[in-house]
Amino acid sequence: MIVVMKKDAQERDLDRVVSRIRDVGLDVHLSEGVEHTIVGVVGDVRHIRPEDLQVLSGVLRVVRIMHPFKLASREFREETSEIQLNGFSIGGREIPVMAGPCAVENRETLMETARGVRARGAKVLRGGAFKPRTSPYSFQGLGEEGLEFMAEAREETGLLVVTEVLSPGDVELVSSYADILQIGARNMQNYSLLHEVGAVDKPVLLKRGMMASVEEWLMSAEYVLSGGNQRVILCERGIRTFEGYTRNTLDLSAVPLVKGLSHLPVVVDPSHGTGRSDLVPAMARAAVAAGADGLLIEVHPRPEEALSDGPQSLTMEEFEAMMKSLGPIAEAVDRSVAGVDSTA
Amino acid sequence: MIVVMKKDAQERDLDRVVSRIRDVGLDVHLSEGVEHTIVGVVGDVRHIRPEDLQVLSGVLRVVRIMHPFKLASREFREETSEIQLNGFSIGGREIPVMAGPCAVENRETLMETARGVRARGAKVLRGGAFKPRTSPYSFQGLGEEGLEFMAEAREETGLLVVTEVLSPGDVELVSSYADILQIGARNMQNYSLLHEVGAVDKPVLLKRGMMASVEEWLMSAEYVLSGGNQRVILCERGIRTFEGYTRNTLDLSAVPLVKGLSHLPVVVDPSHGTGRSDLVPAMARAAVAAGADGLLIEVHPRPEEALSDGPQSLTMEEFEAMMKSLGPIAEAVDRSVAGVDSTA
Amino acid sequence: MIVVMKKDAQERDLDRVVSRIRDVGLDVHLSEGVEHTIVGVVGDVRHIRPEDLQVLSGVLRVVRIMHPFKLASREFREETSEIQLNGFSIGGREIPVMAGPCAVENRETLMETARGVRARGAKVLRGGAFKPRTSPYSFQGLGEEGLEFMAEAREETGLLVVTEVLSPGDVELVSSYADILQIGARNMQNYSLLHEVGAVDKPVLLKRGMMASVEEWLMSAEYVLSGGNQRVILCERGIRTFEGYTRNTLDLSAVPLVKGLSHLPVVVDPSHGTGRSDLVPAMARAAVAAGADGLLIEVHPRPEEALSDGPQSLTMEEFEAMMKSLGPIAEAVDRSVAGVDSTA
Amino acid sequence: MIVVMKKDAQERDLDRVVSRIRDVGLDVHLSEGVEHTIVGVVGDVRHIRPEDLQVLSGVLRVVRIMHPFKLASREFREETSEIQLNGFSIGGREIPVMAGPCAVENRETLMETARGVRARGAKVLRGGAFKPRTSPYSFQGLGEEGLEFMAEAREETGLLVVTEVLSPGDVELVSSYADILQIGARNMQNYSLLHEVGAVDKPVLLKRGMMASVEEWLMSAEYVLSGGNQRVILCERGIRTFEGYTRNTLDLSAVPLVKGLSHLPVVVDPSHGTGRSDLVPAMARAAVAAGADGLLIEVHPRPEEALSDGPQSLTMEEFEAMMKSLGPIAEAVDRSVAGVDSTA
Repeated sequence: MIVVMKKDAQERDLDRVVSRIRDVGLDVHLSEGVEHTIVGVVGDVRHIRPEDLQVLSGVLRVVRIMHPFKLASREFREETSEIQLNGFSIGGREIPVMAGPCAVENRETLMETARGVRARGAKVLRGGAFKPRTSPYSFQGLGEEGLEFMAEAREETGLLVVTEVLSPGDVELVSSYADILQIGARNMQNYSLLHEVGAVDKPVLLKRGMMASVEEWLMSAEYVLSGGNQRVILCERGIRTFEGYTRNTLDLSAVPLVKGLSHLPVVVDPSHGTGRSDLVPAMARAAVAAGADGLLIEVHPRPEEALSDGPQSLTMEEFEAMMKSLGPIAEAVDRSVAGVDSTA
Repeated sequence: MIVVMKKDAQERDLDRVVSRIRDVGLDVHLSEGVEHTIVGVVGDVRHIRPEDLQVLSGVLRVVRIMHPFKLASREFREETSEIQLNGFSIGGREIPVMAGPCAVENRETLMETARGVRARGAKVLRGGAFKPRTSPYSFQGLGEEGLEFMAEAREETGLLVVTEVLSPGDVELVSSYADILQIGARNMQNYSLLHEVGAVDKPVLLKRGMMASVEEWLMSAEYVLSGGNQRVILCERGIRTFEGYTRNTLDLSAVPLVKGLSHLPVVVDPSHGTGRSDLVPAMARAAVAAGADGLLIEVHPRPEEALSDGPQSLTMEEFEAMMKSLGPIAEAVDRSVAGVDSTA
Repeated sequence: MIVVMKKDAQERDLDRVVSRIRDVGLDVHLSEGVEHTIVGVVGDVRHIRPEDLQVLSGVLRVVRIMHPFKLASREFREETSEIQLNGFSIGGREIPVMAGPCAVENRETLMETARGVRARGAKVLRGGAFKPRTSPYSFQGLGEEGLEFMAEAREETGLLVVTEVLSPGDVELVSSYADILQIGARNMQNYSLLHEVGAVDKPVLLKRGMMASVEEWLMSAEYVLSGGNQRVILCERGIRTFEGYTRNTLDLSAVPLVKGLSHLPVVVDPSHGTGRSDLVPAMARAAVAAGADGLLIEVHPRPEEALSDGPQSLTMEEFEAMMKSLGPIAEAVDRSVAGVDSTA
Repeated sequence: MIVVMKKDAQERDLDRVVSRIRDVGLDVHLSEGVEHTIVGVVGDVRHIRPEDLQVLSGVLRVVRIMHPFKLASREFREETSEIQLNGFSIGGREIPVMAGPCAVENRETLMETARGVRARGAKVLRGGAFKPRTSPYSFQGLGEEGLEFMAEAREETGLLVVTEVLSPGDVELVSSYADILQIGARNMQNYSLLHEVGAVDKPVLLKRGMMASVEEWLMSAEYVLSGGNQRVILCERGIRTFEGYTRNTLDLSAVPLVKGLSHLPVVVDPSHGTGRSDLVPAMARAAVAAGADGLLIEVHPRPEEALSDGPQSLTMEEFEAMMKSLGPIAEAVDRSVAGVDSTA
């Protein structure tokens, strides 16, 4: 961190800056420029914030040199983290697809969906038992019963289960059913929840908040990592802009960007990212081409009957066609899609 | 709600739309236009979503006629809700100011701040004991000890206490100390938390999410109201835009807008809304002129020593000057600032 | 400007940075920190961009210390520029109101509007003769005939005339009729046009682009100023966000912010800034309270007949009520509204 | 277009709505619902705007059924427009790449770049002679001399030339040198300029404004099309969001979205879309996977010497590697990259 002093800064201003830095156990390196004195902060700067110094009298600007995240950074771990799961991994050469309904609605539809996506190559079943819904009058999910249906679908199909946890008090319950805990976009900065999932022994799929910068997203990952849970999977799912034709704007540039900044795997959810099933297949292909380590796809046997997010769900036929189209794209970037034979 | 069918919609498409609507207990009114058949939905449409119908075959567009919030709406309650507190109210003619540090740091500084803002007209002491912080390495608040200090400051000064609750599990604890529970911007769509504060007997100050539309904000209020807690105070605190000179963009147009849509009182937080103490007084004045029912202002006796958000805190002298300047503005819009004599 | 070199930067990297800086006639000041060497750029840095240095090998970060605008800055001119007009000024103690229809539609309606706003205190008549319209099928304005009507209205009422110029080729024509040339939001970065109006002897009202940062806005002002035209009036008119209830989000914090950064006067257009006539009076009051140097208000005797932007136009009665309400607000911030007797 | 009347609308309100519609030569279809009367507008609704009716007394909501663009729509022309150029096309099976420096700097560098990108498969040379620059102190381009260099490069290499035109007055000049006229993002709503290029016999590459919705972008295309120029190529180049690590957020979902709405070809500029050369190759691949009809890539033999936008330019080696990687992606979506042998 570098502190640029104002031209007219006083001796006592400088002294105060220096002692503020030393107070937290860091050292300083002073250099007097022609117009500005510059104070370099030496040591681990995670415990001091630019704002702490910016507010001091005589300070013109504070410039951060290092990223504020550490455990999540590529500097901390050079190799991409490959999250090992039952029989496959996320972050390796193979790209797994997680598919299923937005919400678990009933046992029959879930089983039908699970069998269908399994047969078409999916590795993980997605589905919400606890649903964060904008309206208190909307269907809020089946709760534990939904988790039981998910577990039953795993039993039968061998698919792993990813499902959202909404509240710190539910982490233990959801962990007892799920293979991967999902933190939804609206909870990306729910620090009590991040703290709680940082302490469990389950991988965490951390969705980007719809208005979160990449830096904030990585800082939320840092919460989980610093809690002791090293298995964090990042999920880009669209950010909010002024564009009205799509529900969100899927930020695919976040994929190569984050993979440069961090060792964590990055998966993409084009279903929430666009909100339109007609755009999902093209954006799934683009995500793979951009380097995504996995995909999260909403599939429903009969989208028009879905209790939530029908307009963004693929039918089984659309899902099948999409899966087939992914193989050659993956191959073109030297990867493969788990469960899909690209030579077929 | 109105469903516009496509030109080429089939008879069975229309039948399906109609039966989907009737399934949830609503009625329909059909009208055949020259090019499009239009289906009007008759009854309480809160339990059906435009998406449920949009996804059906043959549907061109679904148009919502009514707002999705009910209990929060002006139609539901014509008169502005005046939240009665100990000796004053929010939503009436008088405008109370809530002031204090961003975070409670220690007993002495808090008491000093409380006495200072009390002497200058504040009615409520603000201060965070549980702090939502972007970085896991930043000061996270004093926790219950901070609540005790707040209670002690209330005891001595007579100020009421508003403080943030971060987690459903903390609602009972925080309620036992605070007079008003604050839901922070990052938690505006933390539905578990909204559900929990909907069940307590304390007013709730609900901050607008930095990415939230006004409609979503009112839907979050609807969660609390539908839980049984009628005392909701809305707080505009800035939304996220591309502008870099300010931390957020304070959306003052939300004040008259929300007051037209809803009966709930609206207060403004120009400290977080701008992130810059030099802009706070002007924006506080503008907020009062725009019709705000209260203000939330960060004050610190020595901002340069603040453990969080120093750059946006007013000094005691700046707070005093600001308070004095608010009186005439309030009077110009036929109101007054609680604790400030505008004729002085 | 400060260049922070990477830890592992080579000697030849540093040499290249230094020579690149010296090539444009600037000097350097080197300081070797514990981890990073820092290169301070000495001299007028307007002619070198951070990007020019950022791209060089071995460079970690380039930090701008000074604002990129000079003639527009408070440092360049400490006193607020007061633009003298015929009998009043913009940027002084008195706040002038500019009012009129969005587009000039016909002679009669314009004259009626001009008389009406004149009687209620307006100092300037606004009205578009050349209209930038999203659709090629919409009314594009009356062109020169509209300018003639504006001139005739000035003749009769004594109001000055502000009107938009869309194209460099029209600057001479519009200047021959108008007292103030308006550059619309969509043209804020139309540099050919800025160049052209920089060379005429008429004040320029420069609207902020709907997605322009404050810095870009001031850089556009710099174009006009550096062209030789010192009479630039900035106009905040709302920025684009995700909020759907309003047409734009009026950024009132830009008023005190810009007045801190620049000596140029700042006026506010709450009509375009909200797109809703019901919000205009409250936002006009808030603008004055925030420190605005003027207001731009759409008024139409019969908004429901307006050929453009009817929903945001005030009726004459609404305009009158708004004007009356502004006086006390202005007085509360030690100013007055031109043409309005606040003691009445 | 459908007008929903308020519950309490009066007979005379309805009469007024009906006569307003009939006044512009359209017909109405009335239907009385249980709660709301609905007025259907029958005929070509391009000449009436929702706002014209929204402002009328008694109107609750106006709903547009049709898109506001016509000539640009898929309904108007079902087949994708394939723009024929000299020896190749844009919008067909083959994907051409346009490459070159941001700005034309001097003859030698341009020739070197042209030869280099030609040898690696580019079909069009991009390069700015007139540069829209945020700062009046930045290099503004070589003007006509730059155009001459471009023409000379075409002469030698056979590459076609695309270059930006900034001002209506320059359209004739630029047309005499260029094969494709570029309208930059900042000029997407410069209607004088759109009008002018609508009248020339050259294809127009229309960049999306950084603040433009897809609908506004297509409306700008409509300006050119309605002027008589049918050869419009759309170019996605990133929109402005709050994300700070990238210059813009490249909206790749706009590719399949626009191709659904419109028959016009869509190309992608990942260089401006990200502002970072390290992200360009991945995003170029993603663009092809998403269905882009072409790419616009900044290439500079020595990016560190570029007079503008160096940080986003690929070196010749990076460009070569990127081009090679595109072939298999294109093949995976049943297309090919012009000039690249994907079987090699």
